[in-house]
Amino acid sequence: MTREFKTVCERVRERVEPDAEERQTLAAVREELVTRTESAFADLPVEVEIQHVGSTARDTWLAGERDIDLFVAFPPSLDREELEAFGLKIGHTVLPNGTEEFAEHPYVVGEVGGFAVDLVPCYAVDDATAIQSAVDRTPFHNSYVSERLDSDLAGDVRVCKQFFNGIGVYGSDLRTKGFSGFLTELLVLEYGGFRSLVDAATGWHPPVQFDPADHGTTAFDDALVVVDPTDPDRNVAAVCSAANVARVQHFARELVAKPRIALFESAAPAPLEAQAVRTAFADRETVPVAVRFDAPDVVDDQLWPQLERSREGIGDELDRRGFDVLRSVALADETAVLLFELAVAERPRIERHDGPPVHVREHARKFCDAYAGADVYGPFIEGNRYVVERERAFETAAALLGSDAIFDVALGAHVESALEDGYDLLVGEGIGELAEAFGRELARYLSPTPRG
Amino acid sequence: MTREFKTVCERVRERVEPDAEERQTLAAVREELVTRTESAFADLPVEVEIQHVGSTARDTWLAGERDIDLFVAFPPSLDREELEAFGLKIGHTVLPNGTEEFAEHPYVVGEVGGFAVDLVPCYAVDDATAIQSAVDRTPFHNSYVSERLDSDLAGDVRVCKQFFNGIGVYGSDLRTKGFSGFLTELLVLEYGGFRSLVDAATGWHPPVQFDPADHGTTAFDDALVVVDPTDPDRNVAAVCSAANVARVQHFARELVAKPRIALFESAAPAPLEAQAVRTAFADRETVPVAVRFDAPDVVDDQLWPQLERSREGIGDELDRRGFDVLRSVALADETAVLLFELAVAERPRIERHDGPPVHVREHARKFCDAYAGADVYGPFIEGNRYVVERERAFETAAALLGSDAIFDVALGAHVESALEDGYDLLVGEGIGELAEAFGRELARYLSPTPRG
Repeated sequence: MTREFKTVCERVRERVEPDAEERQTLAAVREELVTRTESAFADLPVEVEIQHVGSTARDTWLAGERDIDLFVAFPPSLDREELEAFGLKIGHTVLPNGTEEFAEHPYVVGEVGGFAVDLVPCYAVDDATAIQSAVDRTPFHNSYVSERLDSDLAGDVRVCKQFFNGIGVYGSDLRTKGFSGFLTELLVLEYGGFRSLVDAATGWHPPVQFDPADHGTTAFDDALVVVDPTDPDRNVAAVCSAANVARVQHFARELVAKPRIALFESAAPAPLEAQAVRTAFADRETVPVAVRFDAPDVVDDQLWPQLERSREGIGDELDRRGFDVLRSVALADETAVLLFELAVAERPRIERHDGPPVHVREHARKFCDAYAGADVYGPFIEGNRYVVERERAFETAAALLGSDAIFDVALGAHVESALEDGYDLLVGEGIGELAEAFGRELARYLSPTPRG
Repeated sequence: MTREFKTVCERVRERVEPDAEERQTLAAVREELVTRTESAFADLPVEVEIQHVGSTARDTWLAGERDIDLFVAFPPSLDREELEAFGLKIGHTVLPNGTEEFAEHPYVVGEVGGFAVDLVPCYAVDDATAIQSAVDRTPFHNSYVSERLDSDLAGDVRVCKQFFNGIGVYGSDLRTKGFSGFLTELLVLEYGGFRSLVDAATGWHPPVQFDPADHGTTAFDDALVVVDPTDPDRNVAAVCSAANVARVQHFARELVAKPRIALFESAAPAPLEAQAVRTAFADRETVPVAVRFDAPDVVDDQLWPQLERSREGIGDELDRRGFDVLRSVALADETAVLLFELAVAERPRIERHDGPPVHVREHARKFCDAYAGADVYGPFIEGNRYVVERERAFETAAALLGSDAIFDVALGAHVESALEDGYDLLVGEGIGELAEAFGRELARYLSPTPRG
């Protein structure tokens, strides 16, 4: 078994190791970028430090990934507006065809020699606890890892990233809620290699907690806690969901039990056609109902938490109204979709409504007054309480979702505005329409596996 | 208001007061019975005491009720078999056309001069805590009440019984679970009259507790507690349900707010015809489903608790399986019926089944092994757990109730045997059939009021 494991890892390692040519190209592009940046600063009245950070700087990138993150560190005394202005100016000079993106502040991204380049301004603070902006932390992470990773461990980091990719848990974006590159590096460092990490993960009992710099001061309520070695109050794994920790554990056991390359390869299913989607739901005998609207024009890390919050809010309301959500999913590209799969298609005209205990005199009186002569069954008495059976507000989920009641649940702000601009309601067979944009996601939804 | 209340009570009182002729008839029949009993004992080698007990003995019977309870008290030294043999022998001698009934031991009931007569053997124990059989208590209750009720209070007891009759809470049988005659007498004694009882009841805050003889030693967990003045460990109101206490409270408020004769008259609705039953359920848009079987041949006080237990057991199972019981009712005469009104007609083919947390290794392994290659969706991971969507056992309530699964729920023993002998399942429109035997009960079910 150990030999098989080793063989599999070696094969993966070879695959994901950038070759000499890729390394040379990277070195040349970086050189070019640094030169461009330095000359761009020649005209500016400010001292900066240029730092190559990220996986290409730490030798932990996967062959073919081709991202270069160049950080330009300004003096902390510079005010924010100036930093942003300088940052954008330099960015556009270095990357003439670049476009602006926005994290905590704007920056320019572009393409040079086949590499995707991020040129990010930050503050050159003294240590990571003194940061003025989240990006200021990156150079510290970069130094911490670079000082500790030798090329053998860097190779293990690559294998581990590829494993996390394969099982769908790689990425700290708020859609994936998985493992960042930095987190992966820290875990490999912590265990001294991929194999030890995998062995340990098979027996994890969350919360799983590490404090590489042994300086943590805060209690975190996360399934996985890795205290940032450059900041004692920060959990590097804060976005990592319990499900993704469980997935790593599940697949670690799989990998140990039966080592195989397939676990390092993503398993995207073939997209389903409309008719196949309809047939699949019909075969489950559930009622799919979807709210479709124009995706709000915000970055993914804003969009996804809002979609998830909205999915939860609407799902809870559907449950509360008796439509029993079996499962649900959020989908997004140009359009966003909140899809709910219901176990209950329809509720009767009436619903039971429990009133106050008879002995609570004032409430009892109000309850009886309210329902006297109303079109209800009762009031009658069960146990020590009044009960009526009254008209239900919504007999179907579609009636509920098509009404203003959808705005009474907790929705993300941008989702709420998007819905206010209008939305489609797809029910039952109508769900087939979603296959065009989301055939692959629906295939995954309808054949769920432990992968993320 | 007080005047109206008084007027109403006086009118009721007149109605329920037996007239001179009825009293004379009663006296004559009692005389006759005592004579017959004494002469029957002339031949027997045992000393007995003959006691007229119950409401006709205490002057608290309602006009027209015509029940005579004659207790024959034997020496406590007599063994049980002999007591039963003597009791039946005397019973048949005194009531030549009598039939045998059975409470804690057998006794004879018959008819004499238009009165229903119970001739019950008991032990002449020294006090009520030394009883050998539950019926031995009755003579003590009789003495307790007779010594304390004057004819004015006896009149109030009659009015109160009539009120309890009118609102459907009179009777300590295990179907009604209401107020016994003795309990009614104790309450009127406790409050010194009907009006005070009603006034107090408007403000009751259960548990409502009394201890007329101030000798209680036991804590009771009942909505109404009246410690038996002849037995400190017994709650006279033990069978009285919380709902019936609440009903008294509700109608006490009604009576004070708007005194009226209607509250002293039972409000049996007109029976519904089959088509009206079908229409009523259709209008509610629920799914009625009924289990109908031959009523087990046991006394009502055995039958009703078993029917209620079975109704609860099956109702819980229907809920657990997702069919959401809106309301249910047990019906019985020749046939017994457990009727469940469902909010959910059908569930999908699949159901969600949560597995163990991924980190609980041994359970996780078993779960994954169990579902590997099975015809399920998943396993997949949600939160920290495995989940599968698997085939549901029953998609409809009828499928569940028509299967052996009905015997897996807690049923009364006699109900279980009766079901084993076979039962009908009526669903939806089929429920109309029940109107023939239970038209009135269905009318009450479909127009529920606070009355019991």
